[in-house]
Amino acid sequence: MSLLTNTLNAISGQDQSWRDQAQNRLDQLVMPHWALGRLMDLALDLAGMTRSLTPPVTRKAIITMAGDHGVAAEGVSKFPQEVTPQMVGNFINGGAGINALAKQVGARVIVVDMGVAADLSAMVASGKLIDKKIGFGTNNIAQGPAMTREQAIAALEAGIEVVNHYADDIDLFGTGDMGIANTTPSTAIVAALTNTPVAEVTGRGTGLDDDQLKLKITVVKKALEINNPDPTDGLDVLAKVGGFEIGGIAGVILGAAARRKPVLIDGLISTAGALIAYTLKPEIKDYLIASHRSVEQGHRIMHQHLGCEPLLNLNLRLGEGTGAALAMNIVEAASRVLTDIATFSEAQVASADK
Amino acid sequence: MSLLTNTLNAISGQDQSWRDQAQNRLDQLVMPHWALGRLMDLALDLAGMTRSLTPPVTRKAIITMAGDHGVAAEGVSKFPQEVTPQMVGNFINGGAGINALAKQVGARVIVVDMGVAADLSAMVASGKLIDKKIGFGTNNIAQGPAMTREQAIAALEAGIEVVNHYADDIDLFGTGDMGIANTTPSTAIVAALTNTPVAEVTGRGTGLDDDQLKLKITVVKKALEINNPDPTDGLDVLAKVGGFEIGGIAGVILGAAARRKPVLIDGLISTAGALIAYTLKPEIKDYLIASHRSVEQGHRIMHQHLGCEPLLNLNLRLGEGTGAALAMNIVEAASRVLTDIATFSEAQVASADK
Repeated sequence: MSLLTNTLNAISGQDQSWRDQAQNRLDQLVMPHWALGRLMDLALDLAGMTRSLTPPVTRKAIITMAGDHGVAAEGVSKFPQEVTPQMVGNFINGGAGINALAKQVGARVIVVDMGVAADLSAMVASGKLIDKKIGFGTNNIAQGPAMTREQAIAALEAGIEVVNHYADDIDLFGTGDMGIANTTPSTAIVAALTNTPVAEVTGRGTGLDDDQLKLKITVVKKALEINNPDPTDGLDVLAKVGGFEIGGIAGVILGAAARRKPVLIDGLISTAGALIAYTLKPEIKDYLIASHRSVEQGHRIMHQHLGCEPLLNLNLRLGEGTGAALAMNIVEAASRVLTDIATFSEAQVASADK
Repeated sequence: MSLLTNTLNAISGQDQSWRDQAQNRLDQLVMPHWALGRLMDLALDLAGMTRSLTPPVTRKAIITMAGDHGVAAEGVSKFPQEVTPQMVGNFINGGAGINALAKQVGARVIVVDMGVAADLSAMVASGKLIDKKIGFGTNNIAQGPAMTREQAIAALEAGIEVVNHYADDIDLFGTGDMGIANTTPSTAIVAALTNTPVAEVTGRGTGLDDDQLKLKITVVKKALEINNPDPTDGLDVLAKVGGFEIGGIAGVILGAAARRKPVLIDGLISTAGALIAYTLKPEIKDYLIASHRSVEQGHRIMHQHLGCEPLLNLNLRLGEGTGAALAMNIVEAASRVLTDIATFSEAQVASADK
C-alpha cells in the first residue's frame, strides 16, 4: 500500500478511556469546578490524543510549507511572486515573524520547499531547507487544474514524510505557510468544501483594496467553474484548486494524526489544508487544535465546518505558522493543568458545599 | 509626603515619542502591514510604557494577594472561609493553578497576606509568604464599611511596597487574588464606579445557583445602600466596599505604573483593583494590560470602563493570577515582534505594490 493509504488507515480518533481518566482528575483539582475553562477542555483533548495523563507537548516544531501559485498571474496579491523565495530565505536566516514567535515558545521552525517557483538548491544544500518540491509553482487555477492528481498525492505524502522524519523528537506540531497568492486557492477550497458563496469567504489577503477584492472574487469563481472540483473528494479539490504547500500542510495533519500527536493549525491557508485532510479522513479532527481566528472572513466558516473553536483572536493575518506558535503556549499550559495542579485532597483544602 | 502620594505623583502616561519610533519600525517589518495585529498594538504600548525599542519583559512575576471578607458570613460563596489560608498554603507549596501556569511562562509567584483571617506566621517564617496583613479579614460590607480609610491607604501602600521591593529584578508584573467571597466586594466596586445596576454586574463566582445568585445581588445592593461610597473617590470606595487584597492589587498597579513597568491584570477581582487605581490616577491605564475576559459578567463592563480589550477569552474564572500568567506569553511575543523581526530592507525582500 502507498504511504498515503497506510497513513489514512492508521488514523483513529481520541481514546475515550483516557479522556475519562483525565476528566476524573480535572474534576478534583483544587479550584471551583472547571474554573480554568478551555484550558481544561484542551487538557481532556490532549489526554485523548496522546493516551496519557501527562500529555507530552514540550518538544515543539512549526512546519512552514512554501509554494507558489500560477494564479498569481491574475493579480490577486499585492506582492510579487519573487517574495516567496525571498521569504523562504528570511525563514532560514531567522528574520521572519515565525522565527520570532517560535523562539518565544521554544519551538523549532522546519522550512519545506513544497513548490516554490525558484531554484532553492543552495538553501537546500545549506541544510536549512527541506526539499520536497513538487513543481515550480502550480498551474493557474483560473485556467485549469492546479496540479495533477499524482502531484496532489505526492504533496500529501511529502507532508506525511516530514512528520514521520521528526515524529520521534517532536511532541507538538504546528503548521505554517508561505506562498504569494495562496489565499486565493485557500478561498476556492473553503468555498468548494463548505458549499459557501465565494463572496462570503473571500478576504483581502495581504491588503487588497475594494477593486482588487472584486477581482479576487471573480478569479475564485472562475477557478471553481472551470475546474468543478468534487467536494466529496479531498484529492480532487486539492488537485484542481489547491496548492503544493496546502497539500503539504494537509499531509502534516494526516501524519500527526496517524502518530497521535496534537497539531496546531494556523490561519486561512493552514485551515484550508485541514479541510482537505478532514475530507480525506474526518477523524483527523480529533488531533486538530485551531490556534486562532484570523482577520480573513472565510476563516470563521472553515472553523465552523471543522467544528473547532480557535484559542486566540488577535487580528493576526500573517500566516507562516505565527498563530500556531503563539498558541503552543496555551497547549503547554493545558498539559500542565493536568500534570502540575494538586487535587483538593492532595492539597488538603476544603471543597465546596454541595 | 506619604508613599501613596509620592507614587501617585510619579505616574505619567506612555511616552508618545517612543511609541512613534516603535510604529516606524513596525511599519517596515517584513510582512503585510500590521499583519500581526494586536501583537503589534501591544508592542507599541510596551515601547510607550518602557521608553524602549527593546521592551524588557523576560523577568516576570505574578503577585498573588490574599485576604478575607466579613461579607462571607452572608453566605455569598460556596466555599468556607477556611479555604483562603488553605489556598495560601497551596500557593507556597506550589500546588495551585497559578503555580502551574506561572511555571509554564517562567514567572515567579509572590504570595502576599494582605488580610487573611487566620494566623499565617508559620508561612511567613518560612520565607515563602510576605506579611502585609492589615487585619484578620474585612468587616461585613452588608453591615458597614469594609475597613477604615487609614486601612485602605495602608493596603494600597502595601501593594506599592511589594512592587518597589521587586522592581529592580522584575520587568513584567501580573496581579492575582485569593479570598473567599471576594467577587462580592469586587461586584460592589464595579457597580459603584461604573454606575451600573447591581444585577447586571453580579455573576456566579465559584458556582452559585439561582437562589444563591439572588442572595448575592441583595447583599451587594445592601452594601452599596448602607455605605453609599463616593464614586469619584477611589479610597472611599475601597474603604467602604472593597477588600484588603483588592487594595493591595490596586497598589501593585500604582507601583508598577510609577516604575513604568507593564502590569497584567487577571480576572474580576484584579480588575476591581484596577478600577480603584484608575479612579485614583487615570494615567495608570497606560500601563495596564487586560489579560483575559472571565466568565463573570461584570468583567466586560469593567474592561469597557477602563477602555481595555483583553488578550484572551478562554472561559477562565479562577483568579489567583492565572489569566495574567497565561497572557505573559503574549506580552513576551509582542516584545519579540519589535526586537526579533527583520524589516523588508534588512531581509532583502520585495515590498508590496503601492
